[in-house]
Amino acid sequence: MLDIRLATETDRDAIWNIFHAVVAPGDTYAFNPRISREDALAYWFRADTHTYVAEEDGRVVGTYILKANQPSHGSHVANAAFMVAPDVQGSGVGRRMAEHCLAEARQLGFRAMQFNFVVSTNEGAIRLWKQLGFKIVGTLPGAFRHPQKGYVDVYVMFRSLL
Amino acid sequence: MLDIRLATETDRDAIWNIFHAVVAPGDTYAFNPRISREDALAYWFRADTHTYVAEEDGRVVGTYILKANQPSHGSHVANAAFMVAPDVQGSGVGRRMAEHCLAEARQLGFRAMQFNFVVSTNEGAIRLWKQLGFKIVGTLPGAFRHPQKGYVDVYVMFRSLL
Repeated sequence: MLDIRLATETDRDAIWNIFHAVVAPGDTYAFNPRISREDALAYWFRADTHTYVAEEDGRVVGTYILKANQPSHGSHVANAAFMVAPDVQGSGVGRRMAEHCLAEARQLGFRAMQFNFVVSTNEGAIRLWKQLGFKIVGTLPGAFRHPQKGYVDVYVMFRSLL
Repeated sequence: MLDIRLATETDRDAIWNIFHAVVAPGDTYAFNPRISREDALAYWFRADTHTYVAEEDGRVVGTYILKANQPSHGSHVANAAFMVAPDVQGSGVGRRMAEHCLAEARQLGFRAMQFNFVVSTNEGAIRLWKQLGFKIVGTLPGAFRHPQKGYVDVYVMFRSLL
């Protein structure tokens, strides 16, 4: 049973453990792989950000954030980011969180969702976003320096929520 | 004679006047049209941002910022934003600042430059960016709520600096 809910202060340790494990290899996100716990949690719990966790049998196994991608006249488009604990990746936690996120975004009144920086080598994520209705609407040539593969393209992905 | 140089503390009033005049109509940027002076200058002078002004006969007539578009493994791609005082728009100040910006970005070691949010109705800007070698690499459907035209597309524009 996966329970997806808003994060609380008591989830901070679990979120940091997942965040650190996901960004340390430096192959999927542009976060500094050596980002501090303080900076990571400050970003994940910003005032303008909705922060969620996915809990399975009392253990937080994933987390995501949902926010406006731009302020003001761009604030009708949502942005989100997802992280899943490495040992449960591939088990559907990411998909469940994404479905939850799309429903939350609709409920909050967003008209669309955009991912600004999907690294093209992150094939599992791209496949999942496509299955959930996202399209690649932009390609940023060589915009990510992959630690093993060098400069690789990055996709901008988008889907309407109407 | 247009002199383009790094901004200093004494330029803050002039920058705010330009910033306010440019964002108040709400038709080209996603900044809140009623953003406060404090918030605007905090954004324009962030620690990770290079801030420039264009001065003509002792008057600041334009300003731009240059920074990394993403941290860490995305930090080789620059991002920039430009603002020109309304009464001198169309006189080449924007083009001169953009050329200066491209040279500065090269000197700082950036490999490319990306604009994340070019409103499709801002035709003068788009024409200028194309003349300067930028290409539209992405289209965000209806991502900007134009105060007169409703939901309009937004472009992601990109050019290599190599």
